[in-house]
Amino acid sequence: MGSYTVRAIGTLPLINPGDDLPALLIRAVESSGSFEDSDVLVLAQKIVSKAEGAVVDLQTITASAEALQLAAQTGRDPRLVQVYLDEAKEVLAVKGRMIITRHKLGFVGSSSGVDRSNIAPHEAGRVVLLPRDPDNSARVVRARVLEHTGKTIAVIINDSCGRDYRDGSVGMAIGIAGIGAIETAEKVDLFGNVSHPRIALVDEIAAAASILMGQAGEGVPAVLVRGLTFTVSEKARITDLL
Amino acid sequence: MGSYTVRAIGTLPLINPGDDLPALLIRAVESSGSFEDSDVLVLAQKIVSKAEGAVVDLQTITASAEALQLAAQTGRDPRLVQVYLDEAKEVLAVKGRMIITRHKLGFVGSSSGVDRSNIAPHEAGRVVLLPRDPDNSARVVRARVLEHTGKTIAVIINDSCGRDYRDGSVGMAIGIAGIGAIETAEKVDLFGNVSHPRIALVDEIAAAASILMGQAGEGVPAVLVRGLTFTVSEKARITDLL
Repeated sequence: MGSYTVRAIGTLPLINPGDDLPALLIRAVESSGSFEDSDVLVLAQKIVSKAEGAVVDLQTITASAEALQLAAQTGRDPRLVQVYLDEAKEVLAVKGRMIITRHKLGFVGSSSGVDRSNIAPHEAGRVVLLPRDPDNSARVVRARVLEHTGKTIAVIINDSCGRDYRDGSVGMAIGIAGIGAIETAEKVDLFGNVSHPRIALVDEIAAAASILMGQAGEGVPAVLVRGLTFTVSEKARITDLL
Repeated sequence: MGSYTVRAIGTLPLINPGDDLPALLIRAVESSGSFEDSDVLVLAQKIVSKAEGAVVDLQTITASAEALQLAAQTGRDPRLVQVYLDEAKEVLAVKGRMIITRHKLGFVGSSSGVDRSNIAPHEAGRVVLLPRDPDNSARVVRARVLEHTGKTIAVIINDSCGRDYRDGSVGMAIGIAGIGAIETAEKVDLFGNVSHPRIALVDEIAAAASILMGQAGEGVPAVLVRGLTFTVSEKARITDLL
Protein backbone atom coordinates (compact mmCIF):
# COMPACT_ATOMS: atom_id res chain seq x y z
CA MET A 1 0.00 0.00 0.00
CA GLY A 2 2.19 2.83 -1.28
CA SER A 3 -0.51 5.43 -1.82
CA TYR A 4 -4.21 6.06 -1.72
CA THR A 5 -6.59 8.74 -2.90
CA VAL A 6 -9.47 10.52 -1.21
CA ARG A 7 -12.11 11.93 -3.53
CA ALA A 8 -15.27 13.93 -2.93
CA ILE A 9 -18.48 12.58 -4.42
CA GLY A 10 -19.82 15.93 -5.46
CA THR A 11 -23.02 15.46 -7.37
CA LEU A 12 -25.44 14.30 -4.68
CA PRO A 13 -28.73 16.16 -4.44
CA LEU A 14 -29.94 17.53 -1.12
CA ILE A 15 -31.11 14.55 0.93
CA ASN A 16 -34.64 14.42 2.33
CA PRO A 17 -36.42 11.90 4.57
CA GLY A 18 -37.39 8.82 2.60
CA ASP A 19 -34.80 9.31 -0.13
CA ASP A 20 -33.17 6.14 -1.43
CA LEU A 21 -29.68 7.11 -0.33
CA PRO A 22 -27.90 3.99 -1.68
CA ALA A 23 -29.39 4.57 -5.14
CA LEU A 24 -28.39 8.25 -5.07
CA LEU A 25 -24.84 7.35 -3.99
CA ILE A 26 -24.43 4.73 -6.71
CA ARG A 27 -25.70 7.17 -9.33
CA ALA A 28 -23.34 9.90 -8.08
CA VAL A 29 -20.27 7.66 -8.12
CA GLU A 30 -21.13 6.23 -11.53
CA SER A 31 -21.63 9.70 -13.00
CA SER A 32 -17.85 10.14 -12.95
CA GLY A 33 -16.39 6.65 -12.67
CA SER A 34 -17.28 3.43 -10.92
CA PHE A 35 -16.80 1.52 -7.68
CA GLU A 36 -13.83 -0.80 -7.34
CA ASP A 37 -13.30 -3.68 -4.92
CA SER A 38 -11.85 -2.46 -1.60
CA ASP A 39 -13.08 1.08 -2.06
CA VAL A 40 -14.12 2.66 1.23
CA LEU A 41 -17.20 4.86 0.93
CA VAL A 42 -17.41 7.39 3.78
CA LEU A 43 -20.76 9.05 4.44
CA ALA A 44 -21.41 12.09 6.60
CA GLN A 45 -23.76 11.14 9.42
CA LYS A 46 -26.09 13.97 8.50
CA ILE A 47 -27.18 12.62 5.11
CA VAL A 48 -27.75 9.14 6.53
CA SER A 49 -29.86 10.54 9.36
CA LYS A 50 -31.84 12.75 7.02
CA ALA A 51 -32.57 9.97 4.55
CA GLU A 52 -33.73 7.79 7.44
CA GLY A 53 -35.87 10.54 8.91
CA ALA A 54 -33.89 10.71 12.16
CA VAL A 55 -35.10 14.27 12.59
CA VAL A 56 -37.04 15.85 15.44
CA ASP A 57 -39.23 18.96 15.39
CA LEU A 58 -38.52 20.91 18.58
CA GLN A 59 -42.15 22.11 18.64
CA THR A 60 -43.16 18.58 19.59
CA ILE A 61 -40.79 18.48 22.58
CA THR A 62 -41.66 19.34 26.18
CA ALA A 63 -38.72 20.06 28.45
CA SER A 64 -38.46 18.17 31.72
CA ALA A 65 -37.28 19.73 34.99
CA GLU A 66 -33.79 18.33 34.35
CA ALA A 67 -33.71 19.82 30.85
CA LEU A 68 -34.90 23.22 32.14
CA GLN A 69 -32.15 23.23 34.76
CA LEU A 70 -29.41 22.20 32.28
CA ALA A 71 -30.72 24.73 29.74
CA ALA A 72 -30.51 27.54 32.30
CA GLN A 73 -26.99 26.46 33.22
CA THR A 74 -25.77 26.37 29.61
CA GLY A 75 -27.86 29.08 27.99
CA ARG A 76 -29.45 26.64 25.54
CA ASP A 77 -33.00 26.03 24.29
CA PRO A 78 -34.65 23.74 26.90
CA ARG A 79 -36.34 21.68 24.19
CA LEU A 80 -32.99 21.12 22.49
CA VAL A 81 -31.49 20.03 25.82
CA GLN A 82 -34.43 17.65 26.24
CA VAL A 83 -33.50 16.04 22.91
CA TYR A 84 -29.90 15.66 24.14
CA LEU A 85 -31.25 13.90 27.24
CA ASP A 86 -33.63 11.72 25.23
CA GLU A 87 -30.71 10.59 23.05
CA ALA A 88 -28.36 9.97 25.99
CA LYS A 89 -27.69 7.13 28.36
CA GLU A 90 -26.18 9.60 30.83
CA VAL A 91 -24.82 13.13 31.14
CA LEU A 92 -21.08 12.92 31.81
CA ALA A 93 -20.09 16.57 32.19
CA VAL A 94 -21.16 20.16 31.60
CA LYS A 95 -18.43 22.57 30.49
CA GLY A 96 -19.56 26.10 29.78
CA ARG A 97 -22.22 25.78 27.05
CA MET A 98 -21.16 22.21 26.29
CA ILE A 99 -23.15 19.21 27.50
CA ILE A 100 -21.11 15.99 27.25
CA THR A 101 -23.12 12.78 27.19
CA ARG A 102 -22.84 9.10 26.53
CA HIS A 103 -25.25 8.51 23.63
CA LYS A 104 -27.61 5.53 23.80
CA LEU A 105 -25.40 3.92 21.11
CA GLY A 106 -22.35 4.28 23.39
CA PHE A 107 -20.59 7.29 21.85
CA VAL A 108 -19.20 9.93 24.21
CA GLY A 109 -19.46 13.46 22.87
CA SER A 110 -21.15 16.83 23.06
CA SER A 111 -24.88 17.39 22.47
CA SER A 112 -25.57 13.64 22.04
CA GLY A 113 -24.57 14.07 18.38
CA VAL A 114 -27.61 16.30 17.74
CA ASP A 115 -27.02 18.80 14.96
CA ARG A 116 -28.75 21.95 13.76
CA SER A 117 -26.71 22.95 10.69
CA ASN A 118 -27.90 22.48 7.13
CA ILE A 119 -31.52 22.75 8.13
CA ALA A 120 -33.56 24.38 5.37
CA PRO A 121 -35.79 27.39 6.16
CA HIS A 122 -38.96 25.26 5.86
CA GLU A 123 -37.42 22.88 8.40
CA ALA A 124 -36.72 25.61 10.98
CA GLY A 125 -36.89 24.21 14.50
CA ARG A 126 -35.89 20.73 13.41
CA VAL A 127 -32.73 19.01 14.55
CA VAL A 128 -30.96 15.97 13.17
CA LEU A 129 -30.23 12.96 15.41
CA LEU A 130 -27.69 10.19 14.90
CA PRO A 131 -28.99 7.28 12.80
CA ARG A 132 -30.88 4.76 14.95
CA ASP A 133 -28.48 1.90 14.02
CA PRO A 134 -25.49 3.30 12.12
CA ASP A 135 -23.82 -0.09 11.52
CA ASN A 136 -27.01 -1.29 9.89
CA SER A 137 -27.22 1.89 7.80
CA ALA A 138 -23.69 1.20 6.57
CA ARG A 139 -24.48 -2.47 5.88
CA VAL A 140 -27.49 -1.52 3.78
CA VAL A 141 -25.41 0.78 1.56
CA ARG A 142 -22.67 -1.83 1.24
CA ALA A 143 -25.15 -4.55 0.26
CA ARG A 144 -26.84 -2.33 -2.32
CA VAL A 145 -23.47 -1.46 -3.91
CA LEU A 146 -22.58 -5.16 -4.09
CA GLU A 147 -25.97 -5.99 -5.56
CA HIS A 148 -25.86 -3.22 -8.15
CA THR A 149 -22.18 -3.23 -9.15
CA GLY A 150 -20.76 -6.60 -8.02
CA LYS A 151 -18.05 -4.71 -6.11
CA THR A 152 -17.19 -5.46 -2.49
CA ILE A 153 -16.59 -2.21 -0.70
CA ALA A 154 -16.50 -1.03 2.91
CA VAL A 155 -18.74 1.73 4.24
CA ILE A 156 -17.99 4.09 7.13
CA ILE A 157 -20.41 6.67 8.51
CA ASN A 158 -18.48 9.52 10.13
CA ASP A 159 -19.19 12.50 12.33
CA SER A 160 -17.14 15.41 13.67
CA CYS A 161 -16.30 14.85 17.31
CA GLY A 162 -14.38 16.73 19.98
CA ARG A 163 -11.71 15.14 22.13
CA ASP A 164 -10.58 15.33 25.71
CA TYR A 165 -7.20 17.05 26.09
CA ARG A 166 -7.20 18.40 22.51
CA ASP A 167 -8.99 21.36 21.02
CA GLY A 168 -10.86 21.10 17.74
CA SER A 169 -12.96 18.38 16.17
CA VAL A 170 -11.88 15.45 14.01
CA GLY A 171 -13.88 12.99 11.95
CA MET A 172 -14.58 9.68 13.72
CA ALA A 173 -16.46 6.56 12.68
CA ILE A 174 -19.96 6.02 14.12
CA GLY A 175 -21.06 3.17 11.85
CA ILE A 176 -19.11 0.60 9.83
CA ALA A 177 -19.68 -2.25 7.39
CA GLY A 178 -17.19 -4.57 5.73
CA ILE A 179 -14.16 -3.31 7.67
CA GLY A 180 -13.08 -4.28 11.19
CA ALA A 181 -13.31 -1.63 13.91
CA ILE A 182 -9.76 -2.35 15.07
CA GLU A 183 -6.77 -3.58 13.05
CA THR A 184 -4.85 -5.97 15.32
CA ALA A 185 -2.51 -7.71 12.93
CA GLU A 186 0.78 -8.74 14.49
CA LYS A 187 3.60 -6.52 13.27
CA VAL A 188 7.27 -7.36 13.10
CA ASP A 189 9.55 -4.36 12.99
CA LEU A 190 12.76 -4.00 11.02
CA PHE A 191 14.70 -5.85 13.72
CA GLY A 192 12.31 -8.72 14.33
CA ASN A 193 10.70 -7.19 17.42
CA VAL A 194 7.07 -8.29 17.54
CA SER A 195 4.24 -6.02 18.63
CA HIS A 196 0.46 -6.16 18.50
CA PRO A 197 -0.68 -2.61 17.93
CA ARG A 198 -4.41 -1.98 18.03
CA ILE A 199 -5.08 0.64 15.37
CA ALA A 200 -8.45 2.34 15.02
CA LEU A 201 -8.14 2.33 11.23
CA VAL A 202 -11.80 3.20 10.73
CA ASP A 203 -11.29 6.40 12.72
CA GLU A 204 -8.20 7.26 10.69
CA ILE A 205 -10.19 6.77 7.48
CA ALA A 206 -13.09 8.78 8.93
CA ALA A 207 -10.63 11.61 9.67
CA ALA A 208 -9.08 11.41 6.20
CA ALA A 209 -12.54 11.76 4.64
CA SER A 210 -13.51 14.54 7.02
CA ILE A 211 -10.73 16.70 5.57
CA LEU A 212 -12.77 16.97 2.34
CA MET A 213 -16.13 17.24 4.08
CA GLY A 214 -15.25 20.11 6.37
CA GLN A 215 -17.48 20.39 9.36
CA ALA A 216 -20.40 22.50 8.27
CA GLY A 217 -21.17 20.60 5.29
CA GLU A 218 -23.63 18.83 3.27
CA GLY A 219 -21.42 20.40 0.61
CA VAL A 220 -19.34 17.22 0.47
CA PRO A 221 -21.37 14.58 2.29
CA ALA A 222 -19.77 11.53 0.69
CA VAL A 223 -16.17 10.63 -0.02
CA LEU A 224 -14.57 7.69 -1.79
CA VAL A 225 -11.22 6.40 -0.48
CA ARG A 226 -9.34 4.17 -2.91
CA GLY A 227 -6.15 2.17 -2.56
CA LEU A 228 -6.32 1.11 1.11
CA THR A 229 -5.46 -2.29 2.51
CA PHE A 230 -7.72 -3.39 5.36
CA THR A 231 -9.17 -6.46 7.03
CA VAL A 232 -12.57 -7.22 5.54
CA SER A 233 -15.10 -8.08 8.24
CA GLU A 234 -18.67 -9.17 7.65
CA LYS A 235 -19.50 -8.79 11.34
CA ALA A 236 -17.98 -5.38 11.98
CA ARG A 237 -19.61 -3.30 14.70
CA ILE A 238 -18.47 0.13 15.76
CA THR A 239 -19.23 -0.80 19.37
CA ASP A 240 -16.18 -3.12 19.25
CA LEU A 241 -14.21 0.10 19.48
CA LEU A 242 -16.03 1.61 22.45
CA MET B 1 -10.57 20.72 -3.03
CA GLY B 2 -12.18 17.73 -4.72
CA SER B 3 -9.52 15.15 -4.02
CA TYR B 4 -6.11 14.60 -2.52
CA THR B 5 -3.51 11.85 -2.48
CA VAL B 6 -1.48 10.31 0.31
CA ARG B 7 1.79 8.71 -0.76
CA ALA B 8 4.46 6.84 1.15
CA ILE B 9 8.04 8.09 0.80
CA GLY B 10 9.57 4.69 0.64
CA THR B 11 13.26 5.02 0.00
CA LEU B 12 14.56 6.49 3.24
CA PRO B 13 17.52 4.71 4.84
CA LEU B 14 17.40 3.70 8.49
CA ILE B 15 17.81 6.88 10.53
CA ASN B 16 20.61 7.20 13.09
CA PRO B 17 21.50 9.96 15.58
CA GLY B 18 23.18 12.84 13.80
CA ASP B 19 21.75 12.05 10.38
CA ASP B 20 20.78 15.05 8.27
CA LEU B 21 17.09 14.13 8.11
CA PRO B 22 15.98 17.06 5.91
CA ALA B 23 18.62 16.18 3.31
CA LEU B 24 17.59 12.50 3.37
CA LEU B 25 13.90 13.44 2.99
CA ILE B 26 14.56 15.78 0.08
CA ARG B 27 16.64 13.12 -1.67
CA ALA B 28 13.94 10.48 -1.09
CA VAL B 29 11.14 12.66 -2.45
CA GLU B 30 13.20 13.76 -5.45
CA SER B 31 14.13 10.17 -6.28
CA SER B 32 10.59 9.68 -7.58
CA GLY B 33 9.20 13.15 -8.18
CA SER B 34 9.45 16.55 -6.55
CA PHE B 35 7.87 18.76 -3.91
CA GLU B 36 5.00 21.03 -4.91
CA ASP B 37 3.70 24.13 -3.13
CA SER B 38 1.12 23.23 -0.46
CA ASP B 39 2.36 19.66 -0.08
CA VAL B 40 2.12 18.45 3.49
CA LEU B 41 5.05 16.28 4.54
CA VAL B 42 4.16 14.05 7.51
CA LEU B 43 7.01 12.51 9.49
CA ALA B 44 6.77 9.71 12.04
CA GLN B 45 7.96 10.98 15.42
CA LYS B 46 10.40 8.12 15.69
CA ILE B 47 12.67 9.14 12.81
CA VAL B 48 12.77 12.75 13.98
CA SER B 49 13.67 11.68 17.51
CA LYS B 50 16.33 9.28 16.28
CA ALA B 51 17.96 11.82 13.97
CA GLU B 52 18.03 14.30 16.85
CA GLY B 53 19.45 11.73 19.28
CA ALA B 54 16.41 11.84 21.57
CA VAL B 55 17.31 8.36 22.76
CA VAL B 56 18.07 7.09 26.27
CA ASP B 57 20.06 4.02 27.32
CA LEU B 58 18.19 2.38 30.19
CA GLN B 59 21.52 1.25 31.67
CA THR B 60 22.20 4.88 32.58
CA ILE B 61 18.90 5.22 34.49
CA THR B 62 18.40 4.71 38.24
CA ALA B 63 14.80 4.17 39.32
CA SER B 64 13.42 6.36 42.08
CA ALA B 65 11.11 5.09 44.83
CA GLU B 66 8.11 6.38 42.84
CA ALA B 67 9.28 4.56 39.71
CA LEU B 68 9.85 1.33 41.65
CA GLN B 69 6.34 1.51 43.09
CA LEU B 70 4.70 2.26 39.71
CA ALA B 71 6.78 -0.47 38.07
CA ALA B 72 5.61 -3.04 40.63
CA GLN B 73 2.02 -1.91 40.11
CA THR B 74 2.18 -2.19 36.30
CA GLY B 75 4.69 -5.03 35.82
CA ARG B 76 7.09 -2.80 33.90
CA ASP B 77 10.85 -2.26 33.97
CA PRO B 78 11.51 0.29 36.78
CA ARG B 79 14.11 2.12 34.68
CA LEU B 80 11.61 2.46 31.82
CA VAL B 81 9.04 3.84 34.26
CA GLN B 82 11.68 6.30 35.49
CA VAL B 83 12.04 7.56 31.92
CA TYR B 84 8.25 8.02 31.72
CA LEU B 85 8.43 10.08 34.91
CA ASP B 86 11.42 12.10 33.70
CA GLU B 87 9.51 12.96 30.50
CA ALA B 88 6.27 13.83 32.31
CA LYS B 89 4.85 16.87 34.01
CA GLU B 90 2.49 14.62 35.97
CA VAL B 91 1.04 11.12 36.13
CA LEU B 92 -2.68 11.33 35.36
CA ALA B 93 -3.81 7.72 35.70
CA VAL B 94 -2.68 4.10 35.90
CA LYS B 95 -4.88 1.56 34.10
CA GLY B 96 -3.62 -2.03 34.19
CA ARG B 97 -0.18 -1.92 32.60
CA MET B 98 -0.80 1.55 31.17
CA ILE B 99 0.66 4.68 32.72
CA ILE B 100 -1.06 7.83 31.44
CA THR B 101 0.90 11.05 31.81
CA ARG B 102 0.96 14.66 30.74
CA HIS B 103 4.25 15.01 28.86
CA LYS B 104 6.46 18.02 29.59
CA LEU B 105 5.41 19.31 26.15
CA GLY B 106 1.73 19.13 27.18
CA PHE B 107 0.57 15.95 25.40
CA VAL B 108 -1.63 13.55 27.34
CA GLY B 109 -0.96 9.91 26.54
CA SER B 110 0.47 6.60 27.66
CA SER B 111 4.14 6.05 28.53
CA SER B 112 5.01 9.75 28.00
CA GLY B 113 5.41 8.95 24.29
CA VAL B 114 8.42 6.72 25.04
CA ASP B 115 8.82 3.96 22.48
CA ARG B 116 10.81 0.74 22.29
CA SER B 117 10.01 -0.60 18.82
CA ASN B 118 12.42 -0.47 15.89
CA ILE B 119 15.42 -0.56 18.18
CA ALA B 120 18.30 -2.41 16.51
CA PRO B 121 20.04 -5.29 18.34
CA HIS B 122 23.13 -3.16 18.97
CA GLU B 123 20.83 -0.57 20.56
CA ALA B 124 19.19 -3.07 22.96
CA GLY B 125 18.11 -1.33 26.15
CA ARG B 126 17.63 2.02 24.45
CA VAL B 127 14.31 3.80 24.18
CA VAL B 128 13.20 6.66 21.97
CA LEU B 129 11.78 9.86 23.48
CA LEU B 130 9.65 12.53 21.83
CA PRO B 131 11.68 15.24 20.04
CA ARG B 132 12.71 17.99 22.49
CA ASP B 133 10.87 20.70 20.48
CA PRO B 134 8.74 19.07 17.76
CA ASP B 135 7.47 22.34 16.27
CA ASN B 136 11.06 23.45 15.79
CA SER B 137 11.94 20.07 14.27
CA ALA B 138 9.11 20.59 11.76
CA ARG B 139 10.16 24.17 11.05
CA VAL B 140 13.73 23.08 10.29
CA VAL B 141 12.55 20.53 7.71
CA ARG B 142 10.16 23.07 6.16
CA ALA B 143 12.90 25.72 5.89
CA ARG B 144 15.34 23.28 4.33
CA VAL B 145 12.77 22.18 1.72
CA LEU B 146 12.09 25.84 0.85
CA GLU B 147 15.80 26.59 0.64
CA HIS B 148 16.57 23.57 -1.52
CA THR B 149 13.50 23.43 -3.79
CA GLY B 150 11.84 26.86 -3.59
CA LYS B 151 8.58 25.13 -2.61
CA THR B 152 6.48 26.21 0.35
CA ILE B 153 5.20 23.13 2.12
CA ALA B 154 3.80 22.32 5.54
CA VAL B 155 5.35 19.75 7.86
CA ILE B 156 3.56 17.66 10.49
CA ILE B 157 5.27 15.28 12.91
CA ASN B 158 2.82 12.59 13.99
CA ASP B 159 2.62 9.84 16.58
CA SER B 160 0.17 7.05 17.35
CA CYS B 161 -1.92 7.95 20.37
CA GLY B 162 -4.70 6.30 22.33
CA ARG B 163 -7.95 8.04 23.20
CA ASP B 164 -10.30 8.19 26.14
CA TYR B 165 -13.61 6.46 25.44
CA ARG B 166 -12.36 4.76 22.24
CA ASP B 167 -10.20 1.69 21.79
CA GLY B 168 -7.26 1.66 19.41
CA SER B 169 -4.69 4.26 18.46
CA VAL B 170 -4.85 6.94 15.77
CA GLY B 171 -2.19 9.23 14.35
CA MET B 172 -2.14 12.70 15.92
CA ALA B 173 0.07 15.73 15.33
CA ILE B 174 2.81 16.46 17.88
CA GLY B 175 4.72 19.10 15.90
CA ILE B 176 3.69 21.42 13.06
CA ALA B 177 5.15 24.03 10.73
CA GLY B 178 3.48 26.12 8.05
CA ILE B 179 -0.08 25.01 8.87
CA GLY B 180 -2.32 26.32 11.66
CA ALA B 181 -3.17 23.95 14.52
CA ILE B 182 -6.88 24.73 14.23
CA GLU B 183 -8.91 25.69 11.16
CA THR B 184 -11.48 28.25 12.32
CA ALA B 185 -12.78 29.70 9.08
CA GLU B 186 -16.39 30.81 9.22
CA LYS B 187 -18.61 28.43 7.32
CA VAL B 188 -21.94 29.17 5.74
CA ASP B 189 -24.09 26.13 5.11
CA LEU B 190 -26.38 25.51 2.16
CA PHE B 191 -29.13 27.60 3.78
CA GLY B 192 -27.06 30.55 4.91
CA ASN B 193 -26.71 29.37 8.52
CA VAL B 194 -23.34 30.54 9.82
CA SER B 195 -21.14 28.45 12.09
CA HIS B 196 -17.56 28.67 13.32
CA PRO B 197 -16.38 25.09 13.57
CA ARG B 198 -12.94 24.54 15.07
CA ILE B 199 -11.40 21.70 13.10
CA ALA B 200 -8.17 20.03 14.18
CA LEU B 201 -7.10 19.65 10.55
CA VAL B 202 -3.50 18.80 11.49
CA ASP B 203 -4.76 15.80 13.47
CA GLU B 204 -6.93 14.69 10.55
CA ILE B 205 -3.90 14.90 8.25
CA ALA B 206 -1.77 13.10 10.85
CA ALA B 207 -4.37 10.31 10.92
CA ALA B 208 -4.57 10.14 7.12
CA ALA B 209 -0.78 9.71 6.97
CA SER B 210 -0.79 7.19 9.80
CA ILE B 211 -2.89 4.84 7.65
CA LEU B 212 0.16 4.30 5.44
CA MET B 213 2.65 4.26 8.28
CA GLY B 214 0.95 1.62 10.35
CA GLN B 215 1.94 1.67 13.96
CA ALA B 216 5.01 -0.48 14.23
CA GLY B 217 6.79 1.17 11.53
CA GLU B 218 9.88 2.74 10.40
CA GLY B 219 8.80 0.88 7.28
CA VAL B 220 6.96 3.98 6.09
CA PRO B 221 8.23 6.83 8.27
CA ALA B 222 7.39 9.67 5.91
CA VAL B 223 4.31 10.43 3.85
CA LEU B 224 3.52 13.15 1.34
CA VAL B 225 -0.04 14.51 1.22
CA ARG B 226 -0.87 16.45 -1.94
CA GLY B 227 -3.93 18.43 -2.97
CA LEU B 228 -5.09 19.83 0.38
CA THR B 229 -6.32 23.34 1.05
CA PHE B 230 -5.24 24.76 4.40
CA THR B 231 -4.43 28.00 6.18
CA VAL B 232 -0.71 28.68 5.95
CA SER B 233 0.70 29.84 9.28
CA GLU B 234 4.26 30.91 9.91
CA LYS B 235 3.70 30.91 13.68
CA ALA B 236 1.97 27.57 14.05
CA ARG B 237 2.45 25.80 17.37
CA ILE B 238 0.94 22.46 18.28
CA THR B 239 0.36 23.76 21.82
CA ASP B 240 -2.38 26.00 20.36
CA LEU B 241 -4.39 22.79 20.18
CA LEU B 242 -3.77 21.61 23.75
